[in-house]
Amino acid sequence: MTLAPSRPARPARPGAAVPDLTAPTARLLALLDERRPGWGLPGACYTDPELHEVDLRLVWQRQWVFVGSVAEVPEPGDYLTVDLGSASVLVLRDDDGDVRAFRNVCRHRGARLVAESHGSVGNIVCGYHRWTYGTDGALLHAPQLPPEADPACLGLRTVHLRDVAGLLFVCLAPEPPDDLDTVADVVTPYLEPHAIARTKVAAQVDLVERGNWKLTMENNRECYHCDGHPELLCSLFPTWGLAEHQVPERLRADHDRYLRAETDLLNRCDAMGLPHALVEDLVRRPVGFRVQREPLDGLGESFSETGGRLVRRLLGDLTDAKLGRLGLHLQPNTWFHAMADHVVTFAALPLTHDSTLVRTTWLVDADAAEGVDYDVEELTATWRATNEQDAAFVELTQAGVADPGYEPGPYSEAEDQVEAFVSWYAARVREEAAR
Amino acid sequence: MTLAPSRPARPARPGAAVPDLTAPTARLLALLDERRPGWGLPGACYTDPELHEVDLRLVWQRQWVFVGSVAEVPEPGDYLTVDLGSASVLVLRDDDGDVRAFRNVCRHRGARLVAESHGSVGNIVCGYHRWTYGTDGALLHAPQLPPEADPACLGLRTVHLRDVAGLLFVCLAPEPPDDLDTVADVVTPYLEPHAIARTKVAAQVDLVERGNWKLTMENNRECYHCDGHPELLCSLFPTWGLAEHQVPERLRADHDRYLRAETDLLNRCDAMGLPHALVEDLVRRPVGFRVQREPLDGLGESFSETGGRLVRRLLGDLTDAKLGRLGLHLQPNTWFHAMADHVVTFAALPLTHDSTLVRTTWLVDADAAEGVDYDVEELTATWRATNEQDAAFVELTQAGVADPGYEPGPYSEAEDQVEAFVSWYAARVREEAAR
Amino acid sequence: MTLAPSRPARPARPGAAVPDLTAPTARLLALLDERRPGWGLPGACYTDPELHEVDLRLVWQRQWVFVGSVAEVPEPGDYLTVDLGSASVLVLRDDDGDVRAFRNVCRHRGARLVAESHGSVGNIVCGYHRWTYGTDGALLHAPQLPPEADPACLGLRTVHLRDVAGLLFVCLAPEPPDDLDTVADVVTPYLEPHAIARTKVAAQVDLVERGNWKLTMENNRECYHCDGHPELLCSLFPTWGLAEHQVPERLRADHDRYLRAETDLLNRCDAMGLPHALVEDLVRRPVGFRVQREPLDGLGESFSETGGRLVRRLLGDLTDAKLGRLGLHLQPNTWFHAMADHVVTFAALPLTHDSTLVRTTWLVDADAAEGVDYDVEELTATWRATNEQDAAFVELTQAGVADPGYEPGPYSEAEDQVEAFVSWYAARVREEAAR
Repeated sequence: MTLAPSRPARPARPGAAVPDLTAPTARLLALLDERRPGWGLPGACYTDPELHEVDLRLVWQRQWVFVGSVAEVPEPGDYLTVDLGSASVLVLRDDDGDVRAFRNVCRHRGARLVAESHGSVGNIVCGYHRWTYGTDGALLHAPQLPPEADPACLGLRTVHLRDVAGLLFVCLAPEPPDDLDTVADVVTPYLEPHAIARTKVAAQVDLVERGNWKLTMENNRECYHCDGHPELLCSLFPTWGLAEHQVPERLRADHDRYLRAETDLLNRCDAMGLPHALVEDLVRRPVGFRVQREPLDGLGESFSETGGRLVRRLLGDLTDAKLGRLGLHLQPNTWFHAMADHVVTFAALPLTHDSTLVRTTWLVDADAAEGVDYDVEELTATWRATNEQDAAFVELTQAGVADPGYEPGPYSEAEDQVEAFVSWYAARVREEAAR
Repeated sequence: MTLAPSRPARPARPGAAVPDLTAPTARLLALLDERRPGWGLPGACYTDPELHEVDLRLVWQRQWVFVGSVAEVPEPGDYLTVDLGSASVLVLRDDDGDVRAFRNVCRHRGARLVAESHGSVGNIVCGYHRWTYGTDGALLHAPQLPPEADPACLGLRTVHLRDVAGLLFVCLAPEPPDDLDTVADVVTPYLEPHAIARTKVAAQVDLVERGNWKLTMENNRECYHCDGHPELLCSLFPTWGLAEHQVPERLRADHDRYLRAETDLLNRCDAMGLPHALVEDLVRRPVGFRVQREPLDGLGESFSETGGRLVRRLLGDLTDAKLGRLGLHLQPNTWFHAMADHVVTFAALPLTHDSTLVRTTWLVDADAAEGVDYDVEELTATWRATNEQDAAFVELTQAGVADPGYEPGPYSEAEDQVEAFVSWYAARVREEAAR
Repeated sequence: MTLAPSRPARPARPGAAVPDLTAPTARLLALLDERRPGWGLPGACYTDPELHEVDLRLVWQRQWVFVGSVAEVPEPGDYLTVDLGSASVLVLRDDDGDVRAFRNVCRHRGARLVAESHGSVGNIVCGYHRWTYGTDGALLHAPQLPPEADPACLGLRTVHLRDVAGLLFVCLAPEPPDDLDTVADVVTPYLEPHAIARTKVAAQVDLVERGNWKLTMENNRECYHCDGHPELLCSLFPTWGLAEHQVPERLRADHDRYLRAETDLLNRCDAMGLPHALVEDLVRRPVGFRVQREPLDGLGESFSETGGRLVRRLLGDLTDAKLGRLGLHLQPNTWFHAMADHVVTFAALPLTHDSTLVRTTWLVDADAAEGVDYDVEELTATWRATNEQDAAFVELTQAGVADPGYEPGPYSEAEDQVEAFVSWYAARVREEAAR
């Protein structure tokens, strides 16, 4: 199933204050043209700070980006911040209970308004000169303003924000890609049973990976390297991502177990009316996505050593713990796992051309009691270990692709989602560069 | 009162060894043209390393810059060094007792001659190959020199230096702006009673602010943010910098107290023959300046919790401790406070495009005894706290102006000296770029 | 004695994936043209990151570079790695006992294969997806490879490697300079008596110098600064590098002692048939070199406080400990000292435009027993101290040449090898830029 993307053109904003990226954009396009389909990107795509500026401009400032969930801003005045390169976004729940997003920059002298990643405010007060904004962004207080400055024009700059079944997305473009609704319609029925709006944050870990954001994403998009994740393989089937004919002989028994688990899971889902089929449109649309419910190994319930649940109290109105894993991938920066007992969200956020923040958040039912219904160490063990392992892989790859001896190599057949990610990236760069 | 500036043209030095800044200079000029008067500078002026190179070339290598006072080099052989970006200047008192300035670079292989910020030497001996220079800069010793190298042409490169009532200024340009004398004539009568030549250094603190040097200066040029300086507000009137009609109702009582203190101060000054009137020419001339004697709050003597003096022995031949504060601002990098009991000097010195050294020096009478006449902790408490607070404001602002979501905002009416600083900066860049 | 260099032309490799260095190359050529013979290089040659990229391209990726000795990879599977800027080279002894060199980059996704500086492997297994290569570089294992990817074309990229009397050199160019054989023929008879192939590594120290690689080399090429090396001067004559007429009066007695020691050494060498005469061709050929056997001061045997030997067991079949020092300089990155009791090798390896790794290795007879025949602290004391002193000199010089007040100065007559190094560098840049 695929859906046609579309988006209106918009005029370029002129002026010296906007850096001219014409030359690096042309360079990036030439590099993308050089790429052989099914093979990796040229090294400069990951290592050149100017090309990273193009990425920020054409991807991170134009596409929908996952930033967190409603569980992170439960009450009016609660906020979270994310940095997309040097652009900081303030996401907060306003006094009416709606979640909004603003540029995290004072309209006076430009001071960063909020420095913390999470917190709670009454009004938004700049620490420098105490300009004060309401939670709706309106400028409420700014003494000795000159006559030519109209307070009504000096509210916080707004950022587009959408809530998809409790997941929050922002877009810095004046006119965002218009297909998020379409994708939301597809994925919401999959997510709804996990009732993210009724969860709370059990844990959140920020990890800096020493690599370009695309290496972080490529690393996530395949399990060809999963031998390097012993903890994860307790519950993730080792043949994840392999087509039937690709399963090596040594994994035949594992795969047979997977097939049996899949049959069992699909029967359960059908009986409960839970959607499970693969829907995927990873490349052609701005909001590239892939959603599917898949079995887990062992007890089939969660990311634990035995595959058993990690939270006693299940999410929403679920009563069956053995629902495997709802996997949702969205371009350009996220992947989700929703089990019956908890949800894990991942946001990859570019810091510099060669460093990326991976923010991992574990959501459990809002009424689950820490120490009673779940143990934070146990809940987070698998993905803390897996993330650290992935960070090491990404760092090794960043060093290698920066080497003049690097030449792009072929993706294996198990890396089709890496190819899809890279193709999505190339398509967006070409589209946005042509505007 | 304003005075007409002037300066002779000078030819550009050609050759590949001088980096070509034509393109970034054009970019900076375009950004300055985009600026709306009374509103802030575009973000790139603070964040772009190439534009910082233009600042170094057109401001820091062409204008008079404050580097310290004669109290820092009291004896022959005593020296101080300052870094203006990557340019290091060695200021030392020669064997005849005159203060001179040199490039802090050996003429042989280029080694940094002196690495410390202060010290004392007999001759200046390069640590690498022991080339030896007199305190007048002449090359005294360099063994095995080839015949084509004339020692008389290999003395240290000189830097223009001027002493204004004990304050030391250097200029790296071959032909410095010629209006320092004019400004010196104006400000010397204000400074002379504080007898800087008869002081000693009681304390000096180097603080690195994580922001562009212009943010450091803009921060200094207004007290619109002084609610963030509780220690300073013990002695600085909270209505500092406000015109009569700008005083908000909540500060009316404070302002009335200020007006009474001002009348008292001016009467005292007139009786003693001390100049006090505001003279200001901040924008049009290379040596933009502002000088005025103003009352302090509380006891009206010094920057203490009560406004009382911090040094028992007064400066020079002063006998009245209640002289408020002589405030002197000079573009591009300094501000001074001279009280009856001590002087504080501030030099802002650019390290990189996003970091600035603020060197604060407390001067007391040369005969004042530490522990008897003053306590260093008490003497320095107000400005150490205030500087740390300002460093935090500057860092927040650097983060915000680097954000693509930043747009310049309007200066309040209390920020007219910020507007003056920015206008001075734009005028100098335009003037020097046109040479 | 000089030998004519030659090298075939080779076509440039086009495409956006190779950064375009046309403009910085032109800039570097202009700077080299500005240089006055016998005077230093303009500052930008040491400080500009873009010009450093040109150095990497035209020097480090085109010339023969010393990387270590056979003693560092004694057994099949033993490897060492070196970084030439961002290019990592893996040098290992294959299963047949031959030493080979490869790009240290996986052919699949580009991960760095080996992160350590030394180690031992059976096969070379990439840590990311377990692609496996033999010690001959052939791809042995890569599951789920797509049909269009031919494993035979996915072996490790080879790097040219040569063994000269046990010293290992690599060249990243497709067609290396062809004069290494010629130089090897000259220097091998000098090196052979020290039997490097029969040594082992007694110690290795990696030191990062905070300066451009050329400053590291220039520092090495003269002893005009040796007053700064008190430990070294115990065994190195203080008139090293001076012509007869350059010896200053204060060193006359030292020089007479040197002349007597030299006569004694040459007589011994002649009696043993050891070559000792100076052969030098430092500038004109790609593999610029200088070789000579010279006396040491004191007991004349080794780099110790007394000049006495540091290792009881002598190298190879040598029986006379008093052989002074065989000095071998090779452009662009190395110098060697071979005594009767041990050999010290030095590799200067560029990390960034302003930092350089100096790797120092002490080789002793393979059968010498630590703690019995030698003490590691004593063996390494002189050069550890000397290297630290040189690192400080280099750091001071990097700061100074980055100063806009720097102007190139004249080399003294004692710095003729610095002039030779700089001339060699300029000649190579011009040659390679013209290809």
